[in-house]
Amino acid sequence: MSHTRVHNMNVSLDGFAAGEEVTLDHPIGGAEALFGGFDGRWIGGTDLDIGPMGFKDALSTLWGQRIGAEIMGRRKFGPQSGEWPDDGWQGWWGDEPPFATPTFVLTHYPREQIDFANGTSFRFIDATPAEALELARKAADGLDVRIGGGPSTVRQFLEADLIDFMHLVIVPVVLGRGVSLWAGLEHLQDRFTIESVSFPNGTVHQFWNRKRD
Amino acid sequence: MSHTRVHNMNVSLDGFAAGEEVTLDHPIGGAEALFGGFDGRWIGGTDLDIGPMGFKDALSTLWGQRIGAEIMGRRKFGPQSGEWPDDGWQGWWGDEPPFATPTFVLTHYPREQIDFANGTSFRFIDATPAEALELARKAADGLDVRIGGGPSTVRQFLEADLIDFMHLVIVPVVLGRGVSLWAGLEHLQDRFTIESVSFPNGTVHQFWNRKRD
Repeated sequence: MSHTRVHNMNVSLDGFAAGEEVTLDHPIGGAEALFGGFDGRWIGGTDLDIGPMGFKDALSTLWGQRIGAEIMGRRKFGPQSGEWPDDGWQGWWGDEPPFATPTFVLTHYPREQIDFANGTSFRFIDATPAEALELARKAADGLDVRIGGGPSTVRQFLEADLIDFMHLVIVPVVLGRGVSLWAGLEHLQDRFTIESVSFPNGTVHQFWNRKRD
Repeated sequence: MSHTRVHNMNVSLDGFAAGEEVTLDHPIGGAEALFGGFDGRWIGGTDLDIGPMGFKDALSTLWGQRIGAEIMGRRKFGPQSGEWPDDGWQGWWGDEPPFATPTFVLTHYPREQIDFANGTSFRFIDATPAEALELARKAADGLDVRIGGGPSTVRQFLEADLIDFMHLVIVPVVLGRGVSLWAGLEHLQDRFTIESVSFPNGTVHQFWNRKRD
């Protein structure tokens, strides 16, 4: 069975998981303090060539395991809004985007698919969460689908009750403003079991597993 | 570079990591209390089909990542000792041993290799830890080598300073007797950095990373 998962979602104490104003120079939009402890090099799996493996690194290795497709919001793909400019933009990641699977970008402005040699293909679709998930599941061919963010995309999938698993990292920073993960999700906790582990640096890692019948 | 790793090594408060008397009926040799919290189903990787994924399950998924060979002690392979009886024994695991790689069994009584369709091949060698590791590294073809236990095998590799990473689980049980992981390893901690996380059920997970120059 194919499940829907969220990984490495960093959230501030006041509930923000991204900055408000993403620009080419500020891809994180003013929320840099959220990501100081995140080492993205581990998302490809256990790799002691990188250095000593800590617990947070180990949890990051879940990111790609058994994933067959990703769905992301347009804002994760790039800083543009509205009609796509003719600027040759192919995402933030250069020639080897780490996804290495079909990757669906939600946008009201569909455009032609972009394919990379490493298996990443960006497919631009104007779809509801449920419609996007159906397409992604088909592309994932029995594997799981990752909802890659940003937070407003994850929030929409949570509203539609389409998320089976989330790895959240509650970071001890107060941002004051940003994109909320939680807005409109009152009582979300009732639908999940939640396991927390706290680390001496003040971060709390949480696994949210959707309750099953 | 190829590293040497130990995973899911459960140790009692008094330092034992296996029972003393392994028999066909008691493969864990009286140390069953050590393994009550271990769900081996996760060693193959993230799989929400199994059920909700907790932190300990997530850490178990490291077991097979980037592993190209295993080295195990004879006692892990079977309850026999001395000359191999002609009993058709092929290990505890049936037709699909989970290793799915070359797997070196340390024994003073070499015998013919046993191959399985899933990629597991048991290769019986009479070798020192350093010699065994050299063979396993070659077989692993650039990937890491797992030292699969039992504890006396892990202890020999620690004595020879051949372990780069260990995931230990300190289980709140007092066994009174068994096979010690620690005997003869005074000051072992000086060679490693150690990160610990404790869980409400009283277990403490530790990552030991060998210090690097």
